Amino acid sequence: MQIIERLISELEKLPGIGRKSAVRLAFYLLSAPKDYIEDLSDVIRQVPNNIKECPVCHNFTDIASEVCDICKNKNRNREKIVVVAAVQDLMAIEEAGYYNGLYHVLHGLIAPLKGIGIEDIRIDSLLKRVKENSEVKEIILALTPNMDGETTSVYLKDILKEADENIKITQIAKGIPVGSEIEYVDKMTLIKAMENRN
Amino acid sequence: MQIIERLISELEKLPGIGRKSAVRLAFYLLSAPKDYIEDLSDVIRQVPNNIKECPVCHNFTDIASEVCDICKNKNRNREKIVVVAAVQDLMAIEEAGYYNGLYHVLHGLIAPLKGIGIEDIRIDSLLKRVKENSEVKEIILALTPNMDGETTSVYLKDILKEADENIKITQIAKGIPVGSEIEYVDKMTLIKAMENRN
Repeated sequence: MQIIERLISELEKLPGIGRKSAVRLAFYLLSAPKDYIEDLSDVIRQVPNNIKECPVCHNFTDIASEVCDICKNKNRNREKIVVVAAVQDLMAIEEAGYYNGLYHVLHGLIAPLKGIGIEDIRIDSLLKRVKENSEVKEIILALTPNMDGETTSVYLKDILKEADENIKITQIAKGIPVGSEIEYVDKMTLIKAMENRN
Repeated sequence: MQIIERLISELEKLPGIGRKSAVRLAFYLLSAPKDYIEDLSDVIRQVPNNIKECPVCHNFTDIASEVCDICKNKNRNREKIVVVAAVQDLMAIEEAGYYNGLYHVLHGLIAPLKGIGIEDIRIDSLLKRVKENSEVKEIILALTPNMDGETTSVYLKDILKEADENIKITQIAKGIPVGSEIEYVDKMTLIKAMENRN
């Protein structure tokens, strides 16, 4: 296969990139500045080996960092923890620019039908944070409102209340269209859903 | 900047990739198979240094190849040459799967207002092919039907007739919506436009 066809076929394997987009990207790359080609190629290669989960909240962070930028940031409100299923959800909430507390990334949702149980997602470390950290006053559940999200929310409410009966547990409002991914919700809807948490 | 933010920001520079798509691609790459990451990173880095123009038709080809795969292919009909402005247009026509002749890629269109003249695109080598090659019976002009495309078509018709008065010069039919890029036309429209060339 000629090299340009190889580039197109590798680009086509990316999610959401069809043949036409892959061709367009390939031709852009053909004539892109050399520095950009180097930077892009390097960062793609480096990322998988230079990322780890933050030991506190399980956000992704650089391998050399002790904790992630959010956990490290002294200006964040340490009384609140938003619980999300994935780092993408955390990023969407960050971009909305409304929330200034901490996060906890579960890296999944409880899904008995898919064989994903309590021990497969980052629940233990959330309980540990709540138990060992008297600063935490509120846990805000921001899980996609589908079956797995609801199952996980119900379970978390029970177990968190058990861990600390004084803790406030809220859920972001169902302003979010049921079935849609938090990652793709527009900023205003996300802000409304955060404000109306209950 | 953390490495994942760097990856997202490099991906965002690609044409047609917004912030959400860049985030989605970045997270896909985070957990993609190691082999794929290596292949993608390598091919992106290699392409700009390993591509040249085919000395016959100006299609892109590997640096080590004498001519491109189409010029090399003994099963292609050497009596017809489709003239296109860009390699992307050649690829779109190839994918439609209707045409089995040769190509000539101009790498641009005559555009006096943009300062692009006759000598800036690959017209000389097209004339040379026609003059030196008695096999060529038909030149099919497949240029985007906008002002620059029409200017170039008119000029090519004159100069090609001068070079060889027996040559048949056709133009792909204006089934193509005026103003749209050939690269993005659907296959059936493209086939119709090829069939109805006049």
